[in-house]
Amino acid sequence: MRKLDKILYPESVALIGASEKEGSVGNELLKRITEFKYNGKLYPINPKHSSIMGIKCYAKITDVVDEIDLAIIAVPAKFVSGVIDECHLAQVHNVIIISSGFKEIGGEGIELEEKLKNQIEKYNMTLVGPNCLGVFNADGKLNFDGCFGPTIPEVGTIGFATQSGALAGGVFNISKSARIGFSQMVSLGNQTDVDALSVLEQWENDDNVAQILLYLESIKDPEKFRKLATKIATKKPILAIKAGRSSAGAKAAASHTGSLAGTDSYFEGLLKSCGVVREFSLREMFNDAKVLGNCPLPKGKRLAIITNAGGPGIIATDTASDYKLEVNTFSSELQEKLKTLTLPQASVKNPVDLVASASMEHYTNVCEEVLKSDEVDMLLVIYLYITGKHDMDILKSLEQLKKKYPTKPIIISYMTTPDFFERVKTEMPNSTIPLFDDVQDAVRGFKLLCDRKEFLDGIKQKTPIFEVKNDVVDKILKQAEKEARTLLTTKESLEIFKAYGLLMPKFESALTLAQAEKAIKKVGFPCVLKISSKTVSHKTDFGGVVVGIKNKADFIENFNMLLNKCREAKIEKSLDGIIVMEQVKGSSRELVAGVAPVGEKGHQMMFGIGGIFVEALKEVAFRPCPLTMRDVDALVSSTKAKNIMGEVRGKKAVDINVVKDSLLRLSQLVSDYKNIKELDVNPFMIDDEGRFLTVDARIVMK
Amino acid sequence: MRKLDKILYPESVALIGASEKEGSVGNELLKRITEFKYNGKLYPINPKHSSIMGIKCYAKITDVVDEIDLAIIAVPAKFVSGVIDECHLAQVHNVIIISSGFKEIGGEGIELEEKLKNQIEKYNMTLVGPNCLGVFNADGKLNFDGCFGPTIPEVGTIGFATQSGALAGGVFNISKSARIGFSQMVSLGNQTDVDALSVLEQWENDDNVAQILLYLESIKDPEKFRKLATKIATKKPILAIKAGRSSAGAKAAASHTGSLAGTDSYFEGLLKSCGVVREFSLREMFNDAKVLGNCPLPKGKRLAIITNAGGPGIIATDTASDYKLEVNTFSSELQEKLKTLTLPQASVKNPVDLVASASMEHYTNVCEEVLKSDEVDMLLVIYLYITGKHDMDILKSLEQLKKKYPTKPIIISYMTTPDFFERVKTEMPNSTIPLFDDVQDAVRGFKLLCDRKEFLDGIKQKTPIFEVKNDVVDKILKQAEKEARTLLTTKESLEIFKAYGLLMPKFESALTLAQAEKAIKKVGFPCVLKISSKTVSHKTDFGGVVVGIKNKADFIENFNMLLNKCREAKIEKSLDGIIVMEQVKGSSRELVAGVAPVGEKGHQMMFGIGGIFVEALKEVAFRPCPLTMRDVDALVSSTKAKNIMGEVRGKKAVDINVVKDSLLRLSQLVSDYKNIKELDVNPFMIDDEGRFLTVDARIVMK
Repeated sequence: MRKLDKILYPESVALIGASEKEGSVGNELLKRITEFKYNGKLYPINPKHSSIMGIKCYAKITDVVDEIDLAIIAVPAKFVSGVIDECHLAQVHNVIIISSGFKEIGGEGIELEEKLKNQIEKYNMTLVGPNCLGVFNADGKLNFDGCFGPTIPEVGTIGFATQSGALAGGVFNISKSARIGFSQMVSLGNQTDVDALSVLEQWENDDNVAQILLYLESIKDPEKFRKLATKIATKKPILAIKAGRSSAGAKAAASHTGSLAGTDSYFEGLLKSCGVVREFSLREMFNDAKVLGNCPLPKGKRLAIITNAGGPGIIATDTASDYKLEVNTFSSELQEKLKTLTLPQASVKNPVDLVASASMEHYTNVCEEVLKSDEVDMLLVIYLYITGKHDMDILKSLEQLKKKYPTKPIIISYMTTPDFFERVKTEMPNSTIPLFDDVQDAVRGFKLLCDRKEFLDGIKQKTPIFEVKNDVVDKILKQAEKEARTLLTTKESLEIFKAYGLLMPKFESALTLAQAEKAIKKVGFPCVLKISSKTVSHKTDFGGVVVGIKNKADFIENFNMLLNKCREAKIEKSLDGIIVMEQVKGSSRELVAGVAPVGEKGHQMMFGIGGIFVEALKEVAFRPCPLTMRDVDALVSSTKAKNIMGEVRGKKAVDINVVKDSLLRLSQLVSDYKNIKELDVNPFMIDDEGRFLTVDARIVMK
Repeated sequence: MRKLDKILYPESVALIGASEKEGSVGNELLKRITEFKYNGKLYPINPKHSSIMGIKCYAKITDVVDEIDLAIIAVPAKFVSGVIDECHLAQVHNVIIISSGFKEIGGEGIELEEKLKNQIEKYNMTLVGPNCLGVFNADGKLNFDGCFGPTIPEVGTIGFATQSGALAGGVFNISKSARIGFSQMVSLGNQTDVDALSVLEQWENDDNVAQILLYLESIKDPEKFRKLATKIATKKPILAIKAGRSSAGAKAAASHTGSLAGTDSYFEGLLKSCGVVREFSLREMFNDAKVLGNCPLPKGKRLAIITNAGGPGIIATDTASDYKLEVNTFSSELQEKLKTLTLPQASVKNPVDLVASASMEHYTNVCEEVLKSDEVDMLLVIYLYITGKHDMDILKSLEQLKKKYPTKPIIISYMTTPDFFERVKTEMPNSTIPLFDDVQDAVRGFKLLCDRKEFLDGIKQKTPIFEVKNDVVDKILKQAEKEARTLLTTKESLEIFKAYGLLMPKFESALTLAQAEKAIKKVGFPCVLKISSKTVSHKTDFGGVVVGIKNKADFIENFNMLLNKCREAKIEKSLDGIIVMEQVKGSSRELVAGVAPVGEKGHQMMFGIGGIFVEALKEVAFRPCPLTMRDVDALVSSTKAKNIMGEVRGKKAVDINVVKDSLLRLSQLVSDYKNIKELDVNPFMIDDEGRFLTVDARIVMK
């Protein structure tokens, strides 16, 4: 049995705090349960009444003799604890606490919530809330609407879980005008017990929920979320608003549900890594849900646009281009064919402009020809009612074509009379093609389908496991541990990365001039000198780096200078060498990778443009560790770093597989050694030949 | 009289091609004119009828004895020329040609259009079209709907001019559901005579048009557009979709109205320079029109958010932050005051969360307190109907408050029952506060108001005129002209920029070793050597640049090397010197400025991150020349170049006024010398002290 089965599919419900008082929560709840025709046993509980709204009322839950699957509690916060005790006595294991006045108000509320948490654990109960709107399940056999708020939503296939209860009420209010329908809803409230993860687990295998929509302000256990969401997202789409993105928003979230929003760049990477569609507005989330719920995934990115108005066709083409979709010019064969199916004034290249006076037949025939063609993966139909009202007929005809060509997604953008959507409901209630007013919204739909296709394709790739020299790493870490050091030296860090297969310029290490002279013979000119110390972490600030050494005289002078500097600063003893490194030719292309801890256990990797402009350019992307192939693909392609890695003014492009490989090796290192706290390579330099070289390294242990 | 007065305000109209045939354009037009209750004289023209729809019909326009202000022509393209001759005979000076089959179909259509153009010029007529939907004027005294298409739009204060006629039909269809109203519309068609500029001129001083919305695929005379639009935008908002942004979209536009879209970066700069709000979708354009048409401009960027649901409040806060609006935490005084006006669970910091059970009074009192406060510039009210339906009452109360506090913009985001907007129409028909479903759309409204405020403030700044050494420039240009050179040498270019007041490192020029030795004494080490030639334009590719020269031996060696190289390449005679330039210290911060021609007369300036990553980073902005202060402000602040110019890792920030100054001086140079085709400074280097130095220069003459 799934954890929430008795909460979402209860055969019997007690409503504690049921009330006759118009406008009270206890009354609203009772009304909603009965109005939605709950198909189970309902027990209102209120000591002041023997019946409410014609239903027998009990003084206490213990008075009910039958088994109760679920108790919904809507009494003031201070009475909740007592009610929970009674629920326990009545052997009720599942409760929803609607009441507010807990953690979210601070002060005594925090204590109340702590107490509640202990009770729930002690009694082994499942709890939704407190401070929530309740739950909703439109399952046809059950019809359970256990939430207050004024509107019963349109019924559909969306499961919606939300940390903002009022938002669920608002969303239900507008579900009709937004033309979306819900199968289930869970208002998470303070998530004292049941949280977003519990709901995801519940919905993973509930076929009533075809898509999962989330409104989140925090993610409690990101690692668990990642595993679960990735798994579910391969079966059904997950769309999420993660609010508290900005620092002002995060502050507001903290005072809303007392939850810490955390760094947004982390959540951005986390959600993308899981294949969760991140949403920034409800409107877009609902639009996306309509598309994902009703379209097949396209094979490729070639979009055909058929319109009877030039302007919107061009706007659609521009938008498609923004989204990297291809509005490909049709072959001359297809154009010739289309010429025979259109008015002479029509343009048939793609976008196909049928012109304002196009007839139904023009639409139907051209759409079919295009769907049939192997030059097209997706079809956008734009229809402006100008002469002859074909809006409904076009929809009917396209629904037929959709059945005939089921592998190609179709979306329609309509600018017709305002009663259109009402007419669709009456005349075409089972129509499934997503309809939008605005072409931009429609085109966004195709982008989303392509993204999902890419996710499902990408998830199949296996993450490689590299053969590495663990003995080298073990030895270095053991030594550091022995010396109780958390900061590894540059030399140690370079050696560890080398053991994990990262490419680097030739380097040697020397503590005496004699060793240095040996080293330079192996390394050659021009070279770089940098100190490797157990105590100095910022060697540049210390003046411990010299670049551009071109000859022996310079080399000796600078080596001695560095040695002296260390002596003067009395860090001589902590020096484990001066590194003599081959200077990278044409070093203006610098990238950076870093792994930093997030939360209590997790790590994330950052990758992007490095050098002194890391902060100024902010061309870095983040993904959680361990990296998957999809993550590493995203890291190397989602910022302008990709342009730096390409050919730049005659400097050769880097082999992108080497870059991916390097990042995956770093990720493997962090997985293999749990006591690594953070590490970075800053910079990676790309030389003029396109070699991707680790030039400086830092590792910090826990 | 304005050019379009008789077209938009005709006292008498002849409809040539008036028809009885249901569904024909001539019939649709007649219906629309009569249905909208045209308050002027109407003369249907059709040789086959003596009356149509009960109105006396004339065989030819010359049969009408009365004066005719405007002829609307809806006959097949091949007959148009004859009809124009007849219009001339009838002394009709204003015509709208609805008919298509001209330039847009290519081939013979182009000839037909050419002929039409000549006729119009010969007869000194004003022509709207051909290939258009007509015009519309809701002026209450006139009621002139001279366009075909099925829907009479909602009446309001928007003037809409569009290059896509069908789009106007579509927009009219959805005007009711989009909740926007139109006062006038001009479908521009092929713009053979009347174009977007004519319409702008017309609407500049027509008080019936409070806002101008444009759908454009091309801008014929960008310089004229710039002057006119800038002037008008200070009086009333202009919002424009400029389609054909992408190369695919531009191709589609070319085959739509045969117009060349041009480079989008140019139009982006042009529209922004004029203070035109650039739109990418109709939905956003209409939303923006609602806000600009109904809100005062805020004094600052501090936004108060009042909500009864935490979630949407946080989404709004995040969005505000995206738009650089300030959701400022209220002072403790204001918070204390608000505490007395809210439920104990409410959060009063901003966003103010009144919680789901908030009453009308909570809303009214808190909104008033916030509007009263000098801590707040703008107010977003979010209302989700959860308990107690206050939607209409809140609107009523806010309309009152709007009157009482008229300087602060108010926008509302509602998630209430779907009938709400219908109810508003009945119960609050004169309500003016913009209402949105989605908080993101609402917050975008405030951003727009702030942008407009910034535009109106910025436009007041005077562009400085710098004192420069024109004699230096004149002399150099004269010499180049004498030698019939269009490419100036590096030395000449540097000298011109210096004469225009740009800062540069010390530099001298030498043709002999003796001169070079003199030069280096003035310049000092480290230095750079680069050839300045009348024929070599890419001196780096030629190998004509040496950097990092630290001592005299190196200097002499390299100077001789460069001289020899020039001798070997036989460009010795075209050499006007080898430049000896002080090497900039800490030169990793490189910027680029360039002026390039656009169209036939205009120029645009580009400014952004330079060096080898110009193309890879694409952090450059464009503005048309001559630059205004607003343009130069935008150039220095709209890309990540601004971060490079700030303090970076201990390197000092540049004085941004020096940067602006330099760009304005370059702009002045191009204005002063019309025969300059293009110029660039690549790079400007910022040294570690924050000096902004012109390091390399190029000027090309026409």
